[in-house]
Amino acid sequence: MIRLDTREAGFAAAFDDLVNARREADSDVERDVRVITASVRDEGDAAIRAFTQKFDGHDLDESGWRIESSELAAAYDGLEPDLRAALELARDRIAAYHQKQKPADSDSTDDAGVRLGARWRSVDAAGVYVPGGRAAYPSSVLMNAIPAKVAGVERLVMVTPTPKGEVNPLVLAAAHITGVDEVWRIGGAQAIAALAYGTQRIAPVDVVTGPGNAWVAEAKRQLYGVVGIDMVAGPSEIVVVADAANDPEWIAADLLSQSEHDPSSQSILFTDDALFADSVAKAVDRQIGTLSTKDVARQSWDANGAIILVPDLMAALPLVDRLAPEHLELAVDDPDSLFAKVRHAGSVFLGRHTPEAVGDYVAGPNHVLPTGRRARFSSGLSVLDFMKRTSFLSLGQAGIDAIGPAAVKLAETEGLPAHARSVALRLKS
Amino acid sequence: MIRLDTREAGFAAAFDDLVNARREADSDVERDVRVITASVRDEGDAAIRAFTQKFDGHDLDESGWRIESSELAAAYDGLEPDLRAALELARDRIAAYHQKQKPADSDSTDDAGVRLGARWRSVDAAGVYVPGGRAAYPSSVLMNAIPAKVAGVERLVMVTPTPKGEVNPLVLAAAHITGVDEVWRIGGAQAIAALAYGTQRIAPVDVVTGPGNAWVAEAKRQLYGVVGIDMVAGPSEIVVVADAANDPEWIAADLLSQSEHDPSSQSILFTDDALFADSVAKAVDRQIGTLSTKDVARQSWDANGAIILVPDLMAALPLVDRLAPEHLELAVDDPDSLFAKVRHAGSVFLGRHTPEAVGDYVAGPNHVLPTGRRARFSSGLSVLDFMKRTSFLSLGQAGIDAIGPAAVKLAETEGLPAHARSVALRLKS
Repeated sequence: MIRLDTREAGFAAAFDDLVNARREADSDVERDVRVITASVRDEGDAAIRAFTQKFDGHDLDESGWRIESSELAAAYDGLEPDLRAALELARDRIAAYHQKQKPADSDSTDDAGVRLGARWRSVDAAGVYVPGGRAAYPSSVLMNAIPAKVAGVERLVMVTPTPKGEVNPLVLAAAHITGVDEVWRIGGAQAIAALAYGTQRIAPVDVVTGPGNAWVAEAKRQLYGVVGIDMVAGPSEIVVVADAANDPEWIAADLLSQSEHDPSSQSILFTDDALFADSVAKAVDRQIGTLSTKDVARQSWDANGAIILVPDLMAALPLVDRLAPEHLELAVDDPDSLFAKVRHAGSVFLGRHTPEAVGDYVAGPNHVLPTGRRARFSSGLSVLDFMKRTSFLSLGQAGIDAIGPAAVKLAETEGLPAHARSVALRLKS
Repeated sequence: MIRLDTREAGFAAAFDDLVNARREADSDVERDVRVITASVRDEGDAAIRAFTQKFDGHDLDESGWRIESSELAAAYDGLEPDLRAALELARDRIAAYHQKQKPADSDSTDDAGVRLGARWRSVDAAGVYVPGGRAAYPSSVLMNAIPAKVAGVERLVMVTPTPKGEVNPLVLAAAHITGVDEVWRIGGAQAIAALAYGTQRIAPVDVVTGPGNAWVAEAKRQLYGVVGIDMVAGPSEIVVVADAANDPEWIAADLLSQSEHDPSSQSILFTDDALFADSVAKAVDRQIGTLSTKDVARQSWDANGAIILVPDLMAALPLVDRLAPEHLELAVDDPDSLFAKVRHAGSVFLGRHTPEAVGDYVAGPNHVLPTGRRARFSSGLSVLDFMKRTSFLSLGQAGIDAIGPAAVKLAETEGLPAHARSVALRLKS
């Protein structure tokens, strides 16, 4: 953890380092992924089987390539009732929030007699990546599958690695209650390539979403264009802006809820009170020892944690915008006055009773959010990621006579005579 | 040009070839672009100057790096009045169409007392690529700059190569009337890298849009994630679905309006009448000879043109969906009945008096559209490409008590104790 103070010499340079720190894929990952995706493109299932044997330690021909719907239903039936209820509450709230994102079509005729519009349709097929191992999160299934199904995607494919063949029943149950249509026991860059290119067994999809490790993220980046993707995902981040009226234990827990994700996660506190900063730092240290995730949380907090003292909380906001964090908590009495000044953040948590973690599970907004300063230009996962818009146009004789001559003029000026002719031929002579 | 008939043996395989034909960047381009973008990242302006000398044949230190606003205004003032009027009609109609795309914010409180919403903001800075040389199109400036300005982008940067130092006054005039804030005389992959990474002279932007050659498209693909991009753009395409009641000359001109863009462009006609197909083929051959763009149009039509005979026009639609064309004309009396069955197309032109070219210039919808089958999952350029959404959430004591326990349950199940604690600490004891 580093401590900074905006009023100390050297702050600007130290903050620049924080903003520009790369915690993401290095070029080894890029090279490895290039080899994996090319193998899957060229060799299909044989490559998938070989990489799964190598990385996940099981032979798909023996363990089975797919997990059948009956297994998903059985996993759901086997859950204890309050866990089932929690999953269903989450599903219903997430679905309700995402329903409101469905875009409206438009179709109107203007004064020149030109009919113009836009029509939205879902993609035909989507693939959802769900990490295996430590990060096998049912909440990831919900957050990716629900917007796809709300969009109207007919074929929703889930891929998830099952290291040594093991599956996580929670993940299967979440797939069951969200209507996932196919589940394949594959992961890593090879799974992303299978979804993008298709293999003998696995039909290709149009969009691939979902979080993953550095190899998965890099595969999505490399295959973007072959397939649509949600975003380039990096390590998780939280920025907390808090005054001294907060309980330091609450804020410490919030910071640790990111630190415990991954050694490369980042947690940053901005506060205007040095004593409060000390209290939070102590609370973090004390709480870490009690966590089953303490090794990860300790590494992450030591390497990437930061506490930054500002003269007043408003002064934190331009710095927050430079970080463009995935998650931003505004733990003050009047969070809206701060929020009004924030331009770049993936998701914002307003007030003292809104810990980021409640948004990870049950609140409704998506927890798949832009990381690594990408909230400057991208948004959290939504129904729109599974839809596309077709614009349309219809002119009659009057319409083309009204606006066609200007098109002819511009086409001629651009040196495109067939463009000009295609319009000119239709003008009333 | 190839001719196919759905009822002939071998159609399925021949159509597969058409769908899967790659007309895009090969791996040489990928390697070259990797070298260029890395040089710009590491050496900044020095690399920009060297690549511009090499590819565009002028020394930026002599010809000048920037084009000043006074030069833009002068270019506009120098246009003949009817060209100025055509540009302004186009600008006003494009702005009116894109104004309707501005997304609405949401902010509401649900039955559990949870306040939820989403807030849209523009990116801070955007870069627009405008090709130089043969493809120096003022319409490209309008189609990229207008949605950015409608979105609210404060700093809009244009880059355009000026081969041997020459500039196109039309492009400058279009930059003037759309409010472009900075213009740099640079192009190619090096210009995309400059916008993404920034250099000593050029501040980085958040989103880069605009069409370009294979190097530009590949640079955008490689730098996606460092910066937001509109889409991976490939060669232009048109599919025309037409019955025998059309004038073959009109349809021939429409097909050629794509063929004349680039030797790699593609024009495909679906019709249900073999004699009409013959007439269009003859009209294309006759018209090509009259075009100043005949060399390009001939190469494109010979290599990539296709006329496909179908038993009835409805039978064309599943084939159109597989092509997911950038542009689709439905030249029939009742185009809406066909359009209702189309799932994948960038932009659709309805009826006999709606040539695609009118949409390139003055109709209103954007002409920057997904190519290479990407209309399966992506959309034309819009105001949304220059904006991003921040979700937000606010809970009070009642709200966290209502939904918090389910979050605690799920966090514990996922093995994330700090997540669980950050919620549990706030529950009413």
